[in-house]
Amino acid sequence: MLLRMSTLFLRTLREDPADAEVPSHKLLARGGYVRRAAPGVHSWLPLGKLVLENVSSVIREEMSRIGGQEVLLPALVPREYYEATGRWTEYGNSVFRLADRKDAEYLLGPTHEELFTQLVKGEYSSYKDFPVVLYQIQEKFRDEARPRAGILRGREFHMKDAYSFDLDDEGLQRSYTLHRDAYVRMFDRLGLRYVIVSATSGAMGGSASEEFLAETPTGEDTFVRSTGSDYAANVEAVRTPAPTARPIEGLPEAKAHHTPDTPTIETLVDFLNGAGLGRTFTAADTLKNVLVKIRQPGEGEWEILGIGVPGDRDVDTKRLEAALEPAEVAMLDETDFEANPFLVKGYVGPNALLQNKLRFLADPRIVEGTRWVTGADQVDHHIVDLVCGRDFVPDGVIDVADVRDGDPSPDGAGTLYTARGIEIGHVFQLGRKYTDAFQLDALGPDGKPKRVTMGSYGIGVSRVVAAIVEQSHDDKGIVWPRAVAPADVHVIGTGKGEQIEVALRVAGELEARGVRVLVDDRKGVSPGVKFTDAELLGIPTSVIVGKGLDQGVLELRDRASGERAEIALDTVVDRVAGIVRGD
Amino acid sequence: MLLRMSTLFLRTLREDPADAEVPSHKLLARGGYVRRAAPGVHSWLPLGKLVLENVSSVIREEMSRIGGQEVLLPALVPREYYEATGRWTEYGNSVFRLADRKDAEYLLGPTHEELFTQLVKGEYSSYKDFPVVLYQIQEKFRDEARPRAGILRGREFHMKDAYSFDLDDEGLQRSYTLHRDAYVRMFDRLGLRYVIVSATSGAMGGSASEEFLAETPTGEDTFVRSTGSDYAANVEAVRTPAPTARPIEGLPEAKAHHTPDTPTIETLVDFLNGAGLGRTFTAADTLKNVLVKIRQPGEGEWEILGIGVPGDRDVDTKRLEAALEPAEVAMLDETDFEANPFLVKGYVGPNALLQNKLRFLADPRIVEGTRWVTGADQVDHHIVDLVCGRDFVPDGVIDVADVRDGDPSPDGAGTLYTARGIEIGHVFQLGRKYTDAFQLDALGPDGKPKRVTMGSYGIGVSRVVAAIVEQSHDDKGIVWPRAVAPADVHVIGTGKGEQIEVALRVAGELEARGVRVLVDDRKGVSPGVKFTDAELLGIPTSVIVGKGLDQGVLELRDRASGERAEIALDTVVDRVAGIVRGD
Repeated sequence: MLLRMSTLFLRTLREDPADAEVPSHKLLARGGYVRRAAPGVHSWLPLGKLVLENVSSVIREEMSRIGGQEVLLPALVPREYYEATGRWTEYGNSVFRLADRKDAEYLLGPTHEELFTQLVKGEYSSYKDFPVVLYQIQEKFRDEARPRAGILRGREFHMKDAYSFDLDDEGLQRSYTLHRDAYVRMFDRLGLRYVIVSATSGAMGGSASEEFLAETPTGEDTFVRSTGSDYAANVEAVRTPAPTARPIEGLPEAKAHHTPDTPTIETLVDFLNGAGLGRTFTAADTLKNVLVKIRQPGEGEWEILGIGVPGDRDVDTKRLEAALEPAEVAMLDETDFEANPFLVKGYVGPNALLQNKLRFLADPRIVEGTRWVTGADQVDHHIVDLVCGRDFVPDGVIDVADVRDGDPSPDGAGTLYTARGIEIGHVFQLGRKYTDAFQLDALGPDGKPKRVTMGSYGIGVSRVVAAIVEQSHDDKGIVWPRAVAPADVHVIGTGKGEQIEVALRVAGELEARGVRVLVDDRKGVSPGVKFTDAELLGIPTSVIVGKGLDQGVLELRDRASGERAEIALDTVVDRVAGIVRGD
Repeated sequence: MLLRMSTLFLRTLREDPADAEVPSHKLLARGGYVRRAAPGVHSWLPLGKLVLENVSSVIREEMSRIGGQEVLLPALVPREYYEATGRWTEYGNSVFRLADRKDAEYLLGPTHEELFTQLVKGEYSSYKDFPVVLYQIQEKFRDEARPRAGILRGREFHMKDAYSFDLDDEGLQRSYTLHRDAYVRMFDRLGLRYVIVSATSGAMGGSASEEFLAETPTGEDTFVRSTGSDYAANVEAVRTPAPTARPIEGLPEAKAHHTPDTPTIETLVDFLNGAGLGRTFTAADTLKNVLVKIRQPGEGEWEILGIGVPGDRDVDTKRLEAALEPAEVAMLDETDFEANPFLVKGYVGPNALLQNKLRFLADPRIVEGTRWVTGADQVDHHIVDLVCGRDFVPDGVIDVADVRDGDPSPDGAGTLYTARGIEIGHVFQLGRKYTDAFQLDALGPDGKPKRVTMGSYGIGVSRVVAAIVEQSHDDKGIVWPRAVAPADVHVIGTGKGEQIEVALRVAGELEARGVRVLVDDRKGVSPGVKFTDAELLGIPTSVIVGKGLDQGVLELRDRASGERAEIALDTVVDRVAGIVRGD
């Protein structure tokens, strides 16, 4: 169907929307691709709908190629499904909930693990039935606290969610790899620049997991990359390399010192360096013991936990929460200190914890044979040369200290630096969390039930549209990759009569050749306005039917490179069809 | 993509679901097309999703042909939109409502007039912009009191809703006709048998309106047809022909009679016929005066209304509500009678109402010169020969008496009879209800604003799937029309080895010719089970690769006619491709 600007439901805007901060939000609004209906809720106008469909088509083709079968599940999901897995409670106020006229409760599905697990359980029962991969492209709902950036972080958005069901871990690994590879093909076809980062799980539970992040400075997600390799990971997933243990023998004895007026690591280091101890101290020589309390889901009791990190680092809240998940984490309050008088605020050392049966977990850098300056469990006192493995033995390792630019890369090659990206895809080995909840078993060849194992694989379809624009635009507008552009060619008639007729004729001929065409056939609109609109809309190729028409000459423009070339009217259709084919 | 039964996410059922009453519900469940997720909420399995897409494609093509532009609006619609038109209140508990984490209220859009009107207002402002037709295919939500019949009456369902915006009534009429014609083409292509009936409006407000009803005895909608013409209408829309007025001169004077023990029309007629009045009375000679009270939306006061109908008819509640819409209607209670002592229960005549300034509306049959037996406004008394136009003059006409088989058709040809159907489409001249609410104006060539006028046009996409099955099935299963079938051909290999290989090869060759194929390549499944599944699934054409393969012979089956024919292996691809093309 020929898209004609004269009748297209499209009005471009010269000004950015007042609330728009990121390029995709500004340009998709100005280009008339989407309109805001409510906070985080949008309407897709004709050109936007086409882009959304183009992205969906690429996803469908690649899902079909790995044997994915398309289904369509409802948005309304009854409470009972999410009760079975505990997510009814876990989701808190991050989802939309509602009750029907009979007070039966529902939520608007933010993701569909439960419903898919039940669906498969309803149909399949034998080992012969598996594996199976099901997917859907559907509207999803999340009640984001701060919907922002247009369609980049909406409350009603489009997602492709896929689920694999396998008989064993090897099968899950195969399904996972198939999806990961399919995602690589999809995002390549969509023209995205992205990295694949190790991720932690979030509320979905499970183990191996990677995120596809579209690199852009406007991204909400921070991740780290290596200067020396392809290594990339979410901050939560960075694993700090542990140094090898050192000999304890020959190390000086631990000794308590009176250290008045040393409320901070900095003042403590200054004090130590002025105390004539015969060596120089840095913050990295001190051991900071952070106290938190945690509570496991469904339990009433809090457990106090000590976390030791080198004094030059802080505990990173996101890494801490990810490491302790699904437990709830909180700071201690006055009643906790009152109940545990051995905890001397500001001077807590590992031994007060260990001797009082509280767990003490340590940063991976705190290995046997390392010596530390730390609290002496007594006001105004610190202990020097407290040796790990000799004077204290942590209950375990916890890797939650902040990650910094310049830290060694976990893969041993280069150092880490921070980058930003937009999460566009997520592949996830869920394992048996959901199949356990719903008891999804396959009867094996031996007649015994075998618990099925699951993967889930998401793509934010509407977010992909925004991510493409974030990566592919200039100061004049969007620069669509051809695979997602709402049209291949923008044919622009700039004159009053004949040029527009010729533009329509060229457009018609191109369309007959299978080229997707947007034609600017508006009368009474200046060439300048048409060119400005064309640059804003961002169709890859433009054909301009203008003044040169008298000499049988048109102009060809390439949106990405800005190149312009004259072309004869009688060759334009062949030439443009060739460009679209990629000749 | 070749659909292979060996891996397809499909398990057919031998038994009907316990709650299934109508054929489409039974067969779509047994054939593995849909599965229930909650009351009135369903999941579409792979074959069902394909059928849904096929129906959507036909709709898209015909919408595009009349210049409709596809958009996609959100399901979450903020309260403010529906407040502007009063529908936030009007919808009562028939919609799903919810609040977000900031207590902002939303409903899940049951239809999108408000949002579309605002959308157009945001983009368009000049008369040059109009007309425009926008549509979407999207999930809709209604909290039906009694979700039933599977996808036939769901609470989450798929709809195509279109809206036209025109500058004047002639434009609206054109847009309406375009849509009506497009609907005829769509439903014809979808292989449906349907009638187009005049309808009243329901909660959407407005004037001219027609419904497309798929004829089936299981339909929820009752309509009337004529024995003598194409006339068809919803019961609410039937207009009773009014007889011509008769001369009043020469009619006997009205006279009150003591009529004890005549609590019903029947006993009254018996009494009259035994009272020696010189003629024979029937119920049709009596005038029944029904009292109701009505209240306009937003008003506090009730108005009492008298409705006169011939004594052989009752007031039809649906017709009454449709006639008085948007007013609320209720029966009188004791306090009303106490407050109006001139209303003598059981003996109310028109004059007690008229003399006390209460409105009295009469059935169209009560024309000038007709004479009636009716209440004398006095206990145990009736009045005979009360003549319309002489003894009482109604305040107006109200056409709400029940419609019966045998009533004359309003178009003068034949008589009416009742039939049943499923509402699959609705075309509706909304007029300016919504554009008034949102002040959607177009600036005219004279610089003056002109209020835009609107039409809305709905199709129940998922319901169409069910309606097709209701009309097109037999006792063995579904009989899909080719346009919507999930595949063109079902290739069935019935043996153990070679037959299945050949079936897959034939399937591959057919697919290469653009034929959509489902191939039964299951091993260890008996021919009988495969044939039974094939009949249940309802693909139009089957090719059976069975015992005849040794002689190079396959079997061709036509699902609709049941015809079977032998066919040579080397001609099967050409032959089937020809059948699919319609040769």
